[in-house]
Amino acid sequence: MRDLSGDLAWLSLNWATVRERCDLRQAIEACARHGIAGIAPWREPLQALGVGEAARLIRDHGLTVTGLCRAGMFPAADAAGRQAAIDEVRRAIDEAAAIGARCLVMLAGGMPPGSKDLALARRQAQDGLAAVLPHARAAGVPLAIEPLHPMYAADRCCISTLAQANDVCGELDPTGESRLGIAIDVYHVFWDPTLEREIARADAAGRILAFHVCDWLVPTKDLLLDRGMMGDGIIDIPRIRGLVEAAGYAGFVEVEIFSRDWWRRDPDEVLRIIANRYRTVV
Amino acid sequence: MRDLSGDLAWLSLNWATVRERCDLRQAIEACARHGIAGIAPWREPLQALGVGEAARLIRDHGLTVTGLCRAGMFPAADAAGRQAAIDEVRRAIDEAAAIGARCLVMLAGGMPPGSKDLALARRQAQDGLAAVLPHARAAGVPLAIEPLHPMYAADRCCISTLAQANDVCGELDPTGESRLGIAIDVYHVFWDPTLEREIARADAAGRILAFHVCDWLVPTKDLLLDRGMMGDGIIDIPRIRGLVEAAGYAGFVEVEIFSRDWWRRDPDEVLRIIANRYRTVV
Repeated sequence: MRDLSGDLAWLSLNWATVRERCDLRQAIEACARHGIAGIAPWREPLQALGVGEAARLIRDHGLTVTGLCRAGMFPAADAAGRQAAIDEVRRAIDEAAAIGARCLVMLAGGMPPGSKDLALARRQAQDGLAAVLPHARAAGVPLAIEPLHPMYAADRCCISTLAQANDVCGELDPTGESRLGIAIDVYHVFWDPTLEREIARADAAGRILAFHVCDWLVPTKDLLLDRGMMGDGIIDIPRIRGLVEAAGYAGFVEVEIFSRDWWRRDPDEVLRIIANRYRTVV
Repeated sequence: MRDLSGDLAWLSLNWATVRERCDLRQAIEACARHGIAGIAPWREPLQALGVGEAARLIRDHGLTVTGLCRAGMFPAADAAGRQAAIDEVRRAIDEAAAIGARCLVMLAGGMPPGSKDLALARRQAQDGLAAVLPHARAAGVPLAIEPLHPMYAADRCCISTLAQANDVCGELDPTGESRLGIAIDVYHVFWDPTLEREIARADAAGRILAFHVCDWLVPTKDLLLDRGMMGDGIIDIPRIRGLVEAAGYAGFVEVEIFSRDWWRRDPDEVLRIIANRYRTVV
């Protein structure tokens, strides 16, 4: 397991962590100012800044784009809706390619309004991934399926476990040549009793494309916007990083915190604390 | 799959559904008034009423006790704490026997304060179950392990999936003679991609001791107290009931709704709505 205490060479900031206080330009400049080597933009601020200008800024500051967030949301009530989702993902792939993102983070999507058919949503998500995979491969953009916590299964992401993500990767890209992989966020997977087995399975296939950290607070006051800073919650982050690295993951550690509390604070203070926690508790 | 539309013979009310407006005596009388055939008390109101008096009231009204909620919470920071938990469960078993409960609902418990070791909590929960099982068997009280939604893994119940519950049952009671089993609540398990397989596995071993219903609202505003009335959310309840009954479960359908919204309403109105939904959407 790598010693991260020496520098911030493998630290990446997910833009959403400072979303209420920084546009993408400000986040890029803040990373550079704090010696944070990676950044993960979201599509909305990327489009607001302009993809070309963002690519230039990122390059000029020597940052690595650890991922572009996010695309997917495949299930829809009708074929036109599903096709629209696929078309949107293709545009996201092009944006990811333009900024040299190491991956495009894929959210499966939940059930369409009115539906109670989770199995159907899961089939539609997998079909959607299959439909966009050739475009991603041609563009050289690895797609990273991110399983989200089961509390989001209904309305955000019907792929809830690493086992599901591994299964989809195995079916759609058995040889790995299309570079379909997985983004592992400790917040979404720490509870999973099959975690060790499924991380090993993903690693053995070289499928771990991104590793995200934050923390689970006790109590958690909101399903969406109450994630914790690393070290403030109950996730054994070093253990999970150890599992991820044990079989070869040697990429960035990306900090993604959705939190009304942290969004209120001065971004420079937030980044200082992130850097400190990265060195000490991740 | 049974037709439940004709009467309320298999409907049970979990006391917690009316907890802010009814003590146990009032809940028993309300069930009798509405023709609801089953009730599931909690320990606190049971003790407040008195176990003997509760048993008499339940018998006089001809109700079936579908379960006693709840006991367990085994993990603790030290051996004395773990022993205290075990002793408390033994008292709960005696109470369950005294009121003729069809099962005692077991909550594994979360991690002790300060701990981040979920694997340890899981071992302690299993060890605790092993420790109380002989007493339950001697008392003739089946213990029903209830896997809770993964959003409660940290602080309430480290047994998050049916697969875990099945594994524990298989290890502690391989022959089934100690009647260690499982309580399945649609709220906690609907998201699980292995649901069909694990229900079949539990059913094959005759382990399903209770079936609880409510609904998952979109959006869900609170992790604990925003469960929905059956039909108001996105869970395909008939599908899950069908899976549970397909291999033989023929017991009660117990309604357990933790909800600030429903707790505010007149209990007779709540029970009328429950009875209607039971006949039409469960």
